[in-house]
Amino acid sequence: MSPSPSRSYDPRTFKALTFHDAVNRFREGTDSPRAYLERCIEMIKEREPIVKAFVALNESGARAASDESTVRWKAGRPLSAIDGMPIGIKDLLETKDMPTQMGCEAFRGNFPKRDNAAVWALREAGAVILGKTATAELGGSHPPATTNPFDPARTAGGSSSGSAAAVGARMIPAAIGTQVGGSIIRPAAFCGNFALKPTQGGINRGERQATSMSTHGVHAGSIEDMWQVTIEIAERAGGDRGCLGLFGPRQSPAAQKPERLIVLETAGWEQLDARSKSAFETLLNSIQGAGIQLLRRADNPLVEKLEQAIADAASICNAITGWENRWYQRNLVNERPDGISERAKNALAKAEAMTVGDYRTALIDREAAQACYSAVVPLADAVIMLSSPGPAPLWAGDQPGKPLLSRPTGDPVFNFPSSMLFAPSVTVPLMAVQDMPLGAQVMGQPQEDARTTAMARWLVENLAPSVGG
Amino acid sequence: MSPSPSRSYDPRTFKALTFHDAVNRFREGTDSPRAYLERCIEMIKEREPIVKAFVALNESGARAASDESTVRWKAGRPLSAIDGMPIGIKDLLETKDMPTQMGCEAFRGNFPKRDNAAVWALREAGAVILGKTATAELGGSHPPATTNPFDPARTAGGSSSGSAAAVGARMIPAAIGTQVGGSIIRPAAFCGNFALKPTQGGINRGERQATSMSTHGVHAGSIEDMWQVTIEIAERAGGDRGCLGLFGPRQSPAAQKPERLIVLETAGWEQLDARSKSAFETLLNSIQGAGIQLLRRADNPLVEKLEQAIADAASICNAITGWENRWYQRNLVNERPDGISERAKNALAKAEAMTVGDYRTALIDREAAQACYSAVVPLADAVIMLSSPGPAPLWAGDQPGKPLLSRPTGDPVFNFPSSMLFAPSVTVPLMAVQDMPLGAQVMGQPQEDARTTAMARWLVENLAPSVGG
Repeated sequence: MSPSPSRSYDPRTFKALTFHDAVNRFREGTDSPRAYLERCIEMIKEREPIVKAFVALNESGARAASDESTVRWKAGRPLSAIDGMPIGIKDLLETKDMPTQMGCEAFRGNFPKRDNAAVWALREAGAVILGKTATAELGGSHPPATTNPFDPARTAGGSSSGSAAAVGARMIPAAIGTQVGGSIIRPAAFCGNFALKPTQGGINRGERQATSMSTHGVHAGSIEDMWQVTIEIAERAGGDRGCLGLFGPRQSPAAQKPERLIVLETAGWEQLDARSKSAFETLLNSIQGAGIQLLRRADNPLVEKLEQAIADAASICNAITGWENRWYQRNLVNERPDGISERAKNALAKAEAMTVGDYRTALIDREAAQACYSAVVPLADAVIMLSSPGPAPLWAGDQPGKPLLSRPTGDPVFNFPSSMLFAPSVTVPLMAVQDMPLGAQVMGQPQEDARTTAMARWLVENLAPSVGG
Repeated sequence: MSPSPSRSYDPRTFKALTFHDAVNRFREGTDSPRAYLERCIEMIKEREPIVKAFVALNESGARAASDESTVRWKAGRPLSAIDGMPIGIKDLLETKDMPTQMGCEAFRGNFPKRDNAAVWALREAGAVILGKTATAELGGSHPPATTNPFDPARTAGGSSSGSAAAVGARMIPAAIGTQVGGSIIRPAAFCGNFALKPTQGGINRGERQATSMSTHGVHAGSIEDMWQVTIEIAERAGGDRGCLGLFGPRQSPAAQKPERLIVLETAGWEQLDARSKSAFETLLNSIQGAGIQLLRRADNPLVEKLEQAIADAASICNAITGWENRWYQRNLVNERPDGISERAKNALAKAEAMTVGDYRTALIDREAAQACYSAVVPLADAVIMLSSPGPAPLWAGDQPGKPLLSRPTGDPVFNFPSSMLFAPSVTVPLMAVQDMPLGAQVMGQPQEDARTTAMARWLVENLAPSVGG
């Protein structure tokens, strides 16, 4: 099959796949979860050969589940508002009916036949678990085969590459991703998704509790579906162990206009390309034009202080996560020396050079940054910032004999802050640069997932997208 | 082999196995880690047929490791103060050279060939991993075959049954246990051990991070070895993800006399047998006699408030841990319906009847109790309380046709407080009742593991044991 042509992206005209607006037709009988699923499968057949978003599909199981859902909707007794929704699960999470191979050779054929707590919750809510989506190896930076749905020469981002690409390619209305550094917000932005990276601990990670700053999150074609999937999981499986978990309305919160937003530049601002900077400034102008006050680092010493506290976010986050994963990864390398990429081995070597004192220092830096973030609560309703330093970069695969590119799925420099601050972040597809999606993220205070979603929704419903050169 | 006679326990004469006082002889060459190990193996041969503390032994691996240690001590280059120490690992923790069967039929033959982070740290420190110690099923209440080393008709406690019994039987100088409710302090007290249940998060649990209130801890024959093993792990593997981990001196802290201690009665006080109560009151009298002030619930409204906040500790702890384990256990029961005990299935049924709201309520109750515990900081240096409601109970196994006894390994009612308060607790063998050990625990504030150990050491070095009827 020859590569499909590039499908240029325009946020003014792009229509993602949505589910929340289909359910009335399910009730009426003019559409059905089974028919919805078949349309998804058709789209997968069309797009998947190039996009490569999935590493496993369970079409027969999905068909059976959607038939049961069809009966429930017709009887007026759906299990939830997402009953019948076809959904993709990042291949780091265990699923009882599909292997869990984590993008890692050492896990080839791994099939534990268990459901992650969030997957269990989705099934309880009637969602149709259609497939496992490709992940960068072990959630790190070694990329899967997935390509960007708007240009196959570009990365879909990572590590939730397949979740972002499947939603961007209109194969499914929603997918589960995970983020430890920038693994939800960045790929979602590269692929024109809406996505929520919740407050740390907001959604039960089930068996995946090993690190102190990773979360499950939701990619979707609409903010309504994004929230609905999130709340259906949280109401059934709760948050991580020891966390109250995500709260909020049982349906997507209504749009809420912020009065003041803090604009964070972060360490990525200086290196940002001119077109992306211009697209973001255009968006900021239209936010100000709507009567919302913007605060930047020069405007208030507490914003400057916060910028300084997150300036080293990349090294702090990498130190913390590297240390927390080192025993797991050392055991894996010892067991399967050829089953792990060079990229992962390089990261492990850095982690193994750390002392426990280095780890403690990084934790204290993280807590200090969290204190700086708490300090700005009275200043503004939320933060707005870019979701990535520019659109999805070109990526043609590793070149034999050349040094390994360290970040083939793009730079998480704009994503480390929400991860290390344990803050909810919603990315919205409000910009385009070079015919590719560019996201803006709204970051709230911890526990403010619903309020952050409500403010992001206001921006989407009230601002014209910003389309740059 | 016929059962050995009951070996009555007297804390005034009992000599546990110690390691810290052997190392000078290793340096001088008058003793060696290999010879020390052989004495342990001899004792295991003698006692193990009745005590049943171990579920796996790696004698050849231990001999090789102790030979290497012997060379290092002779050369004056030990890896640490515990280089050459034979140690047992509770069979919930993964070890690369022995199976990890968790006292659970569903895990029979499970052999992941990985080292838990704490096990890795012990090997790095030169410790000799001699065996896996028996655990109640999955760390719950369904008991292993282990018997109490001082009376085979009695339980060794649980869930760290084998770790406590192996140390009590003088088979090894130290062992690793884990506690989520009362699984370290209670069995340690039943078996005449010293033991530290650290601050929540104090020792890296490695792959075992699934619940919000379990810790690794150390059983030992002396307070010196207890601390040394703890600090050697913490300095290498740190604490749990996101936790600074346990700090402190690189050798056992010197004894430190407290000025004031709070006596906590807890929910177990009313049901306590008269002999145990009397032994504890005798100990309290000798504490007062040494010039230490005691504060009880009637003496201060903040102590009364704390007593009230922990009165429901059992139901709060069981709710939290039940909820946190429910997906894991549901997956296990689905995979292996016959591989799990009725006791565990009963606990799962309770957890599955909970809503996420029930879980959140329990978390808030726990936080409220922690606030009450912080409030007493200015009142006293630490808390003193019994380690168990009486000595190890009799246990003859489940009786066919009779209802299951819910707590065959004893009642954790005196242990839930330190677990839910995230507080370090040290049990010391300072009492005997009916010729069986009875422990007192010193509970400090979170992060005060070293200070708590120092105060416990003062009690041991300065008080006469209390021997009741």
